[in-house]
Amino acid sequence: MPPPCLLIDLYELTMLAGYFEQGMHGIPAVFDLFFRELPFEGGYAVMAGLDPALQYLESLRYPEEDLEYLETLGLFPGAFLAYLSSLRFKGKVTAVPEGTAVFPNEPIVTVEGSLAEAQLIESALLNIVNFQTLIATKASRIARAAAPAKVIEFGLRRAQGPDGAMSVARAAAVGGVTTTSNLAAGREFGLGVAGTQAHSWIMAFPSELDAFRAYATSFPDSCVLLVDTYDTLRSGVPNAIRIAQELAGRGASLAGVRLDSGDLAYLSRETRHMLDAAGFPQVKIVASNELDEHVIAAIRADGGRIDVYGVGTRLATGAGPAGGALGGVYKLVQVGSEPRIKLSSDPAKATIPGRKCLWRVARPDGAFEMDVLSLEEETVSPGTSVFDPTHPLRRSVIPEGCRLQDLRSVVMAEGKRRACTHSLTEMAQRTGEQMAKLPEGCLRFMNPHRYRVALSPGLHATRMRLVEAAKSP
Amino acid sequence: MPPPCLLIDLYELTMLAGYFEQGMHGIPAVFDLFFRELPFEGGYAVMAGLDPALQYLESLRYPEEDLEYLETLGLFPGAFLAYLSSLRFKGKVTAVPEGTAVFPNEPIVTVEGSLAEAQLIESALLNIVNFQTLIATKASRIARAAAPAKVIEFGLRRAQGPDGAMSVARAAAVGGVTTTSNLAAGREFGLGVAGTQAHSWIMAFPSELDAFRAYATSFPDSCVLLVDTYDTLRSGVPNAIRIAQELAGRGASLAGVRLDSGDLAYLSRETRHMLDAAGFPQVKIVASNELDEHVIAAIRADGGRIDVYGVGTRLATGAGPAGGALGGVYKLVQVGSEPRIKLSSDPAKATIPGRKCLWRVARPDGAFEMDVLSLEEETVSPGTSVFDPTHPLRRSVIPEGCRLQDLRSVVMAEGKRRACTHSLTEMAQRTGEQMAKLPEGCLRFMNPHRYRVALSPGLHATRMRLVEAAKSP
Repeated sequence: MPPPCLLIDLYELTMLAGYFEQGMHGIPAVFDLFFRELPFEGGYAVMAGLDPALQYLESLRYPEEDLEYLETLGLFPGAFLAYLSSLRFKGKVTAVPEGTAVFPNEPIVTVEGSLAEAQLIESALLNIVNFQTLIATKASRIARAAAPAKVIEFGLRRAQGPDGAMSVARAAAVGGVTTTSNLAAGREFGLGVAGTQAHSWIMAFPSELDAFRAYATSFPDSCVLLVDTYDTLRSGVPNAIRIAQELAGRGASLAGVRLDSGDLAYLSRETRHMLDAAGFPQVKIVASNELDEHVIAAIRADGGRIDVYGVGTRLATGAGPAGGALGGVYKLVQVGSEPRIKLSSDPAKATIPGRKCLWRVARPDGAFEMDVLSLEEETVSPGTSVFDPTHPLRRSVIPEGCRLQDLRSVVMAEGKRRACTHSLTEMAQRTGEQMAKLPEGCLRFMNPHRYRVALSPGLHATRMRLVEAAKSP
Repeated sequence: MPPPCLLIDLYELTMLAGYFEQGMHGIPAVFDLFFRELPFEGGYAVMAGLDPALQYLESLRYPEEDLEYLETLGLFPGAFLAYLSSLRFKGKVTAVPEGTAVFPNEPIVTVEGSLAEAQLIESALLNIVNFQTLIATKASRIARAAAPAKVIEFGLRRAQGPDGAMSVARAAAVGGVTTTSNLAAGREFGLGVAGTQAHSWIMAFPSELDAFRAYATSFPDSCVLLVDTYDTLRSGVPNAIRIAQELAGRGASLAGVRLDSGDLAYLSRETRHMLDAAGFPQVKIVASNELDEHVIAAIRADGGRIDVYGVGTRLATGAGPAGGALGGVYKLVQVGSEPRIKLSSDPAKATIPGRKCLWRVARPDGAFEMDVLSLEEETVSPGTSVFDPTHPLRRSVIPEGCRLQDLRSVVMAEGKRRACTHSLTEMAQRTGEQMAKLPEGCLRFMNPHRYRVALSPGLHATRMRLVEAAKSP
């Protein structure tokens, strides 16, 4: 369900009313959505949120009750509200597909349309793409840390409200975590669902063994037993082994045990040893409790024997250094035929003006070498000198033999979506393929290699010209 | 709109199916919702989310399409799905009102009902209360840091999806931030809305002065000008002063200027000086850009002159140490008439069993002294010795002359809400009153005083008895 169309910051509408009064609302404009810093101090981000954003654009309209509310604010003339009632998004959207590795300063979404329609959608577009991209990125990090072990998304109880949990499950799937505990998300997005019992189940019975046995009776084929309610190694695992024996006697097989507290590396090693010694090497070990990519990597480094990780809070909130939120912004880059720039007290943070192309430069073996932004009409090719957007003195050359691929495509024209909607499975697969082609150093969780994003000569020159013009009185 | 009833973790339903098969689904059970750690390393939390949680409970039912989805999972027998289709929440809820200062280990919500209904609601209840309480707490910290300056919630573009933004606005209001930029939230919750223009407005015009003038023409009575697009002190503020003069010539008055980058303490001092020198002491200074309670406190300590703070990302995501999520849990504390306990590898983390009361102990002047948990039927009064829940050797006595108030009330009985729903304004007011009665040390942002929460003699003894019983084979 797309968000309500009033899900916008008030200033979008005060600006629109101003443009309307100035007769500027129909001027063609171009906005870029980009971010300046990678989340989690990582080496890449995973684009996500495009499909829900396009759904929002298609559904954009202001029904009578919205206009009545706006009228109560006492800010908007009747003529403007009448205009707003007939406003639809009829613009063009060019974007990177979901599941693509993206980097700072890249226009991952570009919106072209009238100044009014392109401005109006800012708040909701940022809301959707910022959060989805943050979580898809976190999910891909967690999935990589765990592989070949599986990951299940457990974040519902710590997400930002009901819909936050739905957004988490969708974005996690784009990033490669395609199983969730959240049934509403499982149904909505066609994801696998998983889960067994809570501590309350164990506590509701006279003893742990009674609780295990009852669960195994109800679910003999998918029984995962939570073993840490009283004492993991002295009570939980021995009782689970007894149930495994009982199930085996009935031709069934215990699916797994779940550890939810304590030293997961140690407990999983001991549990594995106990299960194997009892003749149950096929029983899986599931672990949960404040996990993320760093904790999982540490557990593995310490010889942990975990087959499935349940990851909740830190996935759902995109926790970690430079986490919590992706700082994506939506900046005006062209008005009519004129490119525009926004300066900053830090000159390296000046925006990158104009309508442009985003090229991925790949080596003959398919490995990604760098990305290049160019003017839309400009030709770039191997041998072209390119400029670092934050340190213009740092230059490089597109290597010979490389192939340039336009990373973006037009996904909406005249307000209508192009047919090529992808499934979450395809997006997750793209994420995996992209990871395989990134420079290995970009995949490090800490202090990763900085992937090169450069400006073409034409774009660099245009930007420098606008900086000079803005600085002269 | 309440969340969909499938917004639950799968394990709630596998447990329910198991209870149903065991004939245990109707056994009376009691669950407590509590958290173990205060967010933000702070001295208190602000309860929020009760009203949306009760809405959810009232709306709980599984329509045909939900049951059809559940059937496709191949986990649930037809008899259980038939039972589920008729299940409604008919239990009792006892809770602390929204806007109350609450502390670790306190049962801020207690749910009594059949084992089935009380278990089923875990995921959604935690989702709602955890996030609302986190954000209300953050908002109260930010509002206190800023007071008497005002705070506006600007978090829409960085919140967890569309509904996350709505939840943020509501919870921020409970915590005392009752103005938002989010129009959908303004309408839904009756909050004040605010906002003026983005950098794109400035960039859409040939010059900053043209942009300012056009805005002042459209909104002469509520004109706040964004002054940092090109150069705050050399261009933005002088141009804003020129507009202030033009408005004054037409009998109107510039409302304010907004700083959105750079050293806000320095820039606000200089801006204040320039505005005052030009004869505009009434023009307000609004500031935004990655603010939170710590940044605001630092700006004020450095003599910043800011009248209104716009706080987005860090409020919407509950950012900060021990932030991002509140770790509230929902634990079974009684089955039938028997209190139950969950142990942990850390003995101090054993749950607090049984049906209980939560008392606030206040001094004659109304100042809060401590909170006490007791057995439901137990009498506690000044002079009673009480026990620290994590360090049983640490004891204290309820001081003579103090008054004990039951912090909770029954807010839902037999699945129906009691009439006493409060408005967000009342909740925000309660938050303010509670802050005034807390020990001052609890209000410190860093290293605050630890408010005492103690167990009555009867509750302590019950807990110790259950710990011993669980540990003996």
